Amino acid sequence: MIDLLHSIDGPSDLRRLNPSQLPQLANELRTFLLNSVASTGGHLSPNLGVVELTIALHSVFNTPHDRIVWDVGHQTYAHKILTGRRDRMHTVRQAGGISGFPVRAESPFDTFGTAHSSTSVSAALGMALASRLQGQERHAVAVIGDGAMSAGMAFEALNNAGVERDLPFIVVLNDNAMSISAPVGALSGHLARLMSGPFYTAVRTGVGHALLAAPPLRDMAHRLETQLKGLLLPSTLFETLGFNYIGPVDGHDLDVLVSTLRNMKSLRGPQLLHVVTRKGMGYAPAEADPVRYHSPGRFDPSHGVKAAASPPPKTYSQVFGQWLCDAAEQDPRVVGITPAMGEGSGMVEFSKRFAHRYHDVGIAEQHAVTFAAGLAAEGLRPVVGIYSTFLQRAYDQLIHDVALQNLPVVFAIDRAGIVGADGATHLGAYDLAFLRCIPNMTVMAASDENECRQMLHTALQQPNPTAVRYPRGAGVGVPTVAQMQLIPIGKGEIRRTTTRPAGARIAILAFGSMVAPAREAAEELDATLVNMRFVKPIDTQLVQEMASTHDALVTVEEGCVMGGAGSACVEAMLTGGTVRPVLQLGLADNFIDHGERSALLAECGLDGAGIIRSIRERFSVLTLEC
Amino acid sequence: MIDLLHSIDGPSDLRRLNPSQLPQLANELRTFLLNSVASTGGHLSPNLGVVELTIALHSVFNTPHDRIVWDVGHQTYAHKILTGRRDRMHTVRQAGGISGFPVRAESPFDTFGTAHSSTSVSAALGMALASRLQGQERHAVAVIGDGAMSAGMAFEALNNAGVERDLPFIVVLNDNAMSISAPVGALSGHLARLMSGPFYTAVRTGVGHALLAAPPLRDMAHRLETQLKGLLLPSTLFETLGFNYIGPVDGHDLDVLVSTLRNMKSLRGPQLLHVVTRKGMGYAPAEADPVRYHSPGRFDPSHGVKAAASPPPKTYSQVFGQWLCDAAEQDPRVVGITPAMGEGSGMVEFSKRFAHRYHDVGIAEQHAVTFAAGLAAEGLRPVVGIYSTFLQRAYDQLIHDVALQNLPVVFAIDRAGIVGADGATHLGAYDLAFLRCIPNMTVMAASDENECRQMLHTALQQPNPTAVRYPRGAGVGVPTVAQMQLIPIGKGEIRRTTTRPAGARIAILAFGSMVAPAREAAEELDATLVNMRFVKPIDTQLVQEMASTHDALVTVEEGCVMGGAGSACVEAMLTGGTVRPVLQLGLADNFIDHGERSALLAECGLDGAGIIRSIRERFSVLTLEC
Repeated sequence: MIDLLHSIDGPSDLRRLNPSQLPQLANELRTFLLNSVASTGGHLSPNLGVVELTIALHSVFNTPHDRIVWDVGHQTYAHKILTGRRDRMHTVRQAGGISGFPVRAESPFDTFGTAHSSTSVSAALGMALASRLQGQERHAVAVIGDGAMSAGMAFEALNNAGVERDLPFIVVLNDNAMSISAPVGALSGHLARLMSGPFYTAVRTGVGHALLAAPPLRDMAHRLETQLKGLLLPSTLFETLGFNYIGPVDGHDLDVLVSTLRNMKSLRGPQLLHVVTRKGMGYAPAEADPVRYHSPGRFDPSHGVKAAASPPPKTYSQVFGQWLCDAAEQDPRVVGITPAMGEGSGMVEFSKRFAHRYHDVGIAEQHAVTFAAGLAAEGLRPVVGIYSTFLQRAYDQLIHDVALQNLPVVFAIDRAGIVGADGATHLGAYDLAFLRCIPNMTVMAASDENECRQMLHTALQQPNPTAVRYPRGAGVGVPTVAQMQLIPIGKGEIRRTTTRPAGARIAILAFGSMVAPAREAAEELDATLVNMRFVKPIDTQLVQEMASTHDALVTVEEGCVMGGAGSACVEAMLTGGTVRPVLQLGLADNFIDHGERSALLAECGLDGAGIIRSIRERFSVLTLEC
Repeated sequence: MIDLLHSIDGPSDLRRLNPSQLPQLANELRTFLLNSVASTGGHLSPNLGVVELTIALHSVFNTPHDRIVWDVGHQTYAHKILTGRRDRMHTVRQAGGISGFPVRAESPFDTFGTAHSSTSVSAALGMALASRLQGQERHAVAVIGDGAMSAGMAFEALNNAGVERDLPFIVVLNDNAMSISAPVGALSGHLARLMSGPFYTAVRTGVGHALLAAPPLRDMAHRLETQLKGLLLPSTLFETLGFNYIGPVDGHDLDVLVSTLRNMKSLRGPQLLHVVTRKGMGYAPAEADPVRYHSPGRFDPSHGVKAAASPPPKTYSQVFGQWLCDAAEQDPRVVGITPAMGEGSGMVEFSKRFAHRYHDVGIAEQHAVTFAAGLAAEGLRPVVGIYSTFLQRAYDQLIHDVALQNLPVVFAIDRAGIVGADGATHLGAYDLAFLRCIPNMTVMAASDENECRQMLHTALQQPNPTAVRYPRGAGVGVPTVAQMQLIPIGKGEIRRTTTRPAGARIAILAFGSMVAPAREAAEELDATLVNMRFVKPIDTQLVQEMASTHDALVTVEEGCVMGGAGSACVEAMLTGGTVRPVLQLGLADNFIDHGERSALLAECGLDGAGIIRSIRERFSVLTLEC
């Protein structure tokens, strides 16, 4: 068998192939993908699912002149392989390597950077309107999953696109009944009911292609099925929104895909193509368990992903999940809410043990937060498990619906700080800055697993909105104490006191994950170390005491310096009588690319050595050596 | 005629009336409303439109045990009058008076505070689930307009509610084909097409009630019309989402409303009642021009709202609108975008002169911003006109789609700071804090009309995302210079230099709207005055120079102190060699209720006198008197 894939250095090579060669290319691409992801780790199931769709899109459309925007973007490995990055796939998601998402700077074929869900239709619509204004003839195509459709933003964009009657604009609904978690909500249920019919079963099992490929027959079978089962078609939703609905078609049948897309290319006005695919397609273990194979680490394809031999150290997500179960057991008012990140947030056990108090609302952050406010208004105690980067999506709801009404919603903010392989789009750098300016909020940063548990407990007892932030991954390794204890609100704790003489005393005010590296620095430099615990209310008294008993202050946080926790310390100091030089350490004013979390922290100067170095550089005037 | 309204001190009085008395009550209520709003100013057309609906809801449901959540909330005057606040209506939106929106602290009948659009379904769903968890039998009812339906958040909530099969949960779609601006988007167009049919025409003109009130006949007529015109029913959209769709019904026919709601009360699972109303109903000038009567100032009901005799001083919104037209004339790449606030943002003239470059995307802030990013990615120069408070709704899109990709989108941020009568929900206090922490952003604050124009011009020339913020209402009265000129990026300007001797020198670093009152203070205290112009990049050199040549600094901004522009100055100072006491003036850490803007600013100490007072209090140690 000829090795087709290695002759494809870009879509123009692809377009030179004979249509009959495409299925072979798909097979080769799938094999390459599997081996590549198995050796690097990364997103697998979503990429295996769109192999044929990717080939078809680049075959039919004149990319990059025509624009393809991939929603969420973690399904673009096949796209990257076909657009000149085959030889860099072994670097994916690694420091200095290519991104796991589309990035404009990486390739002209990556027309728009994506990673957060449901942005593609808005962006592609903007591109389509731009081409009209510029008098250019080009198509804009958004490829969006059914899970991403539950986010309101996609609805807003479809609703807006529906009035543009003359644009060459196509939305491909990649319907695989699967967001990262299983999708939820009425629309998904509706699509799922449809899928239980014989047409879909045929697609799913891969049989009946010959029959179903012929459009008229397929349409008839389809119409019949609808009538027989009395089901509503998704067409009605999209047609209400002004789209011309086409489908559903088998997303693994290249003939059908190519011919349908080719036909659609001649149509004007908003078109929706409903494509049914199977996540993990072609690799049996991934087909059987697409969640496990959504984004695995390295593995041996012939053996599949193995359960870890020894249990990995406890992650903060696990600490949160355990605490949530314990809290729910003690307090019947506790309700757990996630916007489609139940697994990632550590809420699986809770969802099983407290099913009626667990709400996965789908990819719908805005709704999640105001829904929580509604529960809180009735006296319940909602806990929203959310990543720092996704809380950005519900900022107004947090202000307008929760904080303004001073409702006791607990925000458990996971992935705060540097996130690693997911890179800049998922950076959790801003939560402290954007939360601490909001009245009524209490904001805590956990310095270890046990403090995280006790902070969550403390948060739940407050009459006002609260947030506890913690980083991605494993804790520092301390055991969690089952017994829960209130932490005094707005009080930091002195962890270490300098023995230096007046004139050479430094106090390090550290937040959350930075307490551990700051301890190294404090020991090396014989500095005072404070675990601030609270970003809001800041411990003004303690900050002022530190200012008056030390010659300089250093603040350290795993978040943006601008407006962050260090600035809260400075504001507190300035309301007192003693003003000292303050060195503010944290994330600098730039986005941080993907890489290994601890390496990135070191690069940002946020490990022990980096903190020591920064302090030495800044305070060389102080006699640091006794 | 008996005065019914004055016997109604709460819904229980209402429920004692004979159903035949309700139309008279509606008439009295409408008259009261008109006279009340005419004497106070406030929202009129939306309130006149829901008189019957409000009476029907409080008649049928056992409020406040049953929960009603009013979306947007500016249509709750009738609700307030019927729930014990009739005698306080003359204080609405005034300092110390009742709010123009529902406020939980104001009444147990205000079950959930609203003001920003499209939150009601989420909140009411939370309430409904809370009652189930608490074992309580109560209904939750969300009342939402068709304009608010274009926001994705409402879709998220409907999609989530659709799976709750057993909840006593009702959404009333108040369909008046009118958000503050006319609604846009495919869904609205779809509803509007329906409305052109004879049934709707009958509702709109108020004839044919006798015929249409009888449900079977109405349904038949309806079905017939649908078949004849080949129109899709809105039912399909809502039923796809899992709702039982009922309607449309005439929202001014009390018999139909009461009997339909009574029937619905016995149903379980998510119900949607489609009610057709007319904004401004019963007051001819408001029916004819509901936009003008949306939220008028005081007027004489017998003469209607008059055009102002002399033109009011130029508002910042007008300055923006004029600049946008001028910029569009000079640069074909300029595109104007608004999320349903074209009038408020001053974009009406632009929308007429540059119709094909104007996009009102509906109440859809998330989409608006990513749509702009799509345009910018193609080389266009989108300008998003948005209020500070609504930009909160697109925070993630600003970070993830605009700033991370460093796309040149201009954000023209109106209503930054204290907004006046709209109160805490619309407070524009946080934009400086939440914007300046985002990499790649340039953030400016305009100190007068002309600077606003020149800053917008400057913003448009930058290769990165930019924001220009300006306050609500009129400028300081300076003429705008037609010729546009670049302002040096990141540079403040010294407006006045102190003549005091060393040891008694203060420099006031003022931002935007605070430059004018700061000038009063600087003159009174013989202080240096700096118009900082840029919040980001902050003029580090100038701040450090001020620190080294003065004994204390004062920062002043119309925004939250926490993490705001003053903190940016402090951060800049701390990277230099000289550290001084800094007094940070701005909005304190609490929400600010409605009232007159200048009075509220004075209350916050942000007028000339207040700034002088604060400086004297803080720096009494300095010899301020020469």
